Amino acid sequence: MRIILVGAAGKAGRAVHELMEARGHDIVTVGRTSGDVRCDISDPSQLARMWERAGQVDAVVSAAGEVPYAPLAELGGEDFESAWQQKALAQINLVRTGLDHVSERGSFTLISGIPSRDPIVSGAAAATVNGAIEAFVRAAAIEIAPRRINVISPSVFTESLDDFGDFFPGFVPVDVADVARGFQRAVEGASTGEVITLP
Amino acid sequence: MRIILVGAAGKAGRAVHELMEARGHDIVTVGRTSGDVRCDISDPSQLARMWERAGQVDAVVSAAGEVPYAPLAELGGEDFESAWQQKALAQINLVRTGLDHVSERGSFTLISGIPSRDPIVSGAAAATVNGAIEAFVRAAAIEIAPRRINVISPSVFTESLDDFGDFFPGFVPVDVADVARGFQRAVEGASTGEVITLP
Repeated sequence: MRIILVGAAGKAGRAVHELMEARGHDIVTVGRTSGDVRCDISDPSQLARMWERAGQVDAVVSAAGEVPYAPLAELGGEDFESAWQQKALAQINLVRTGLDHVSERGSFTLISGIPSRDPIVSGAAAATVNGAIEAFVRAAAIEIAPRRINVISPSVFTESLDDFGDFFPGFVPVDVADVARGFQRAVEGASTGEVITLP
Repeated sequence: MRIILVGAAGKAGRAVHELMEARGHDIVTVGRTSGDVRCDISDPSQLARMWERAGQVDAVVSAAGEVPYAPLAELGGEDFESAWQQKALAQINLVRTGLDHVSERGSFTLISGIPSRDPIVSGAAAATVNGAIEAFVRAAAIEIAPRRINVISPSVFTESLDDFGDFFPGFVPVDVADVARGFQRAVEGASTGEVITLP
């Protein structure tokens, strides 16, 4: 398959790239500062140019989106707005604008994260936008069929424990190689409207 | 209890007002164009003035927030942004800014809606922001204790079937009087972090 991979330079993105290339797929990498196509998907005009350059694909995979972590009392409205713009609306717009660029039975696979179902202290903005993405995926699935859409919702990455482990006390981490397998399952499988929780 | 009721002029708001007044509570009504305090809670400066006028309360109840309904292919990025600003971020900011105005064991009760769990055609924006609100509530609950926070997630109102019934084929509707009971349960009960689904 021809697959466009957004957020290809991140920890999860690199693992997805490696696995999907080994599976024989043709990967078009997208990143804000690196990749085959440079694009910040939170900017609608850049997103339009990205599709012009990327052309037609069989699958759209997104491992992109940063959110601020801070105690709720310290999170401002602008932090929630930033999380929404960078992680939720950016991925929603990727799907909206990608509908005409994905093959008839193609798929979208987005990324959310565990705080939407298992709350953590300092994770209110993350939880909020992850919950938004997951509900969007369930809703979009019934309207875009036979094209499919799913979302990968991973726990903290094993490879990120040094930086983020303290936010996730006692949480079972997930290796990014297993996160990549989640994306493979969504792309090569047949499910739609699913929140794939990992581990 | 002294209760501030946002969205008091809407169908659900009027039912909550009636029930909670009959329960003997002291209600401060808030609306964009009517009520004891005029305020559009999606405007941060109006929200700050609202708290100056409302003072200290025991419970914050919100039955406010409109979202656009349209097929996914017709929903633009601006529709998702509007839904986010009017229903999700507005209620999140109501909680954030209200933390200092609610008594030590006081509560917040927000409103979402059924499309986040049971998708409907034309409901992608509604689903997205309802999912955001529900995840926010689960996350905020663990940080604001002993203050509580819950969210009411109703099906289509029986009283709105003429306008919205076609969007919800075969869905069991809920009488607004029962929606009001959901708010009563959240305010007078002891639960927190809960999504109260109705009917």
